[in-house]
Amino acid sequence: MTTPYRLHYAPDNASVIIRLTLEELGIPYDTVLLERSKQAHAAPAYLALNPGGLIPTLETPEGPIFETGAILLWLADRHARLAPAPQSPDRGDFLKWLFFLANTAHTALRISFYPEKYVGPDPAAQGLLRATMQARFADHLDILETRAAPWFSPETPSVLDYYLACLMRWRALYPEGTRGSYDAGAWPRLHALLTHLETRPATSRVATAEGLGPHPFTAPQYCNPPEGSAT
Amino acid sequence: MTTPYRLHYAPDNASVIIRLTLEELGIPYDTVLLERSKQAHAAPAYLALNPGGLIPTLETPEGPIFETGAILLWLADRHARLAPAPQSPDRGDFLKWLFFLANTAHTALRISFYPEKYVGPDPAAQGLLRATMQARFADHLDILETRAAPWFSPETPSVLDYYLACLMRWRALYPEGTRGSYDAGAWPRLHALLTHLETRPATSRVATAEGLGPHPFTAPQYCNPPEGSAT
Repeated sequence: MTTPYRLHYAPDNASVIIRLTLEELGIPYDTVLLERSKQAHAAPAYLALNPGGLIPTLETPEGPIFETGAILLWLADRHARLAPAPQSPDRGDFLKWLFFLANTAHTALRISFYPEKYVGPDPAAQGLLRATMQARFADHLDILETRAAPWFSPETPSVLDYYLACLMRWRALYPEGTRGSYDAGAWPRLHALLTHLETRPATSRVATAEGLGPHPFTAPQYCNPPEGSAT
Repeated sequence: MTTPYRLHYAPDNASVIIRLTLEELGIPYDTVLLERSKQAHAAPAYLALNPGGLIPTLETPEGPIFETGAILLWLADRHARLAPAPQSPDRGDFLKWLFFLANTAHTALRISFYPEKYVGPDPAAQGLLRATMQARFADHLDILETRAAPWFSPETPSVLDYYLACLMRWRALYPEGTRGSYDAGAWPRLHALLTHLETRPATSRVATAEGLGPHPFTAPQYCNPPEGSAT
């Protein structure tokens, strides 16, 4: 590697959370495009890095790391930025929201995107599952809006921020045809974070690299990347 | 609090993973029983600690922490045991398996226990979802068996161990009526860990406290706790 890190990515996939964070940290990295349409994430070379075949994987001098939350936490600790130090008194509070995003909010959203992977081809079952998970994700945003201060604020930047912003972006866009059912403005504190993050140079750089449009968080558009595709 | 920690628990719920870990670390703690049958986890006093109403919550001198993975990681770092130190070269590898357990394996298993929360009352849809998630959990065990060394071994004790052991216990027991579809012996490396953990005093103490039976990991029985109930 010519840089310390190599990010295996597909445009506007969960890898974009890591890319935004690497840019925010100002760390050089290389990218390896995974052509999802060619099942690159299921090829033996990729499974050797990440046996679950999920995106992303970050190759580091200490080996490959997968799971978005794990990568974020590792980067924050290794570079001593964007997270409370391990012995800090607010570390526990930070960790609970990181796991809440990864384990609770992201999980609900992911199921809403791919209901067929859970309940098969029946459209009624898919619709019910999707609606249930979208309602649950809205509950999660309510909790983050009202209970997670001081996190998710421009005053306390952390690796939580881009993770949430991408989840809210995807909720607005996917699955296609459900856009009207969601308005990020319903969560004013979180929406203020989205507005703030769009002023960050990291957002501009990644929006260009992955074709996310001029307002990727407050007015999301389907990605139009210079290489690869989201699906 | 008379001890540094207060664990809000229900017998044989995810809280037992934290209890086993506290015992393994030799840390004094108090317990607060949540009577699930009385919806104690949905009462305002509990939601003030944990807005999602999930079990467990660990109260600490630095505030309440929820999400099982977050609590485990925080305890390990705070007590400098059962996880690589934050700047250790194997920290990233450890974190990816912790998030894999929380975010991927535990999630699949949880859906298999409560399919009605995802697809409503239709038994066919529930059965399909359950079968899909049980198959996915088996895939996760395959990955842990073959790809996660040196973790999940008596030689490298970590907070990953009891987390996995409890997941495998619950897979054997729940939902009732599916026992025959699972044999932990199919994963010999993981099964050896289960056998080892049953020799630990921590396991004996928690098995007594929560009525888990003499072999809670290798020959699970439904819990018969001295107080409260699992559901």
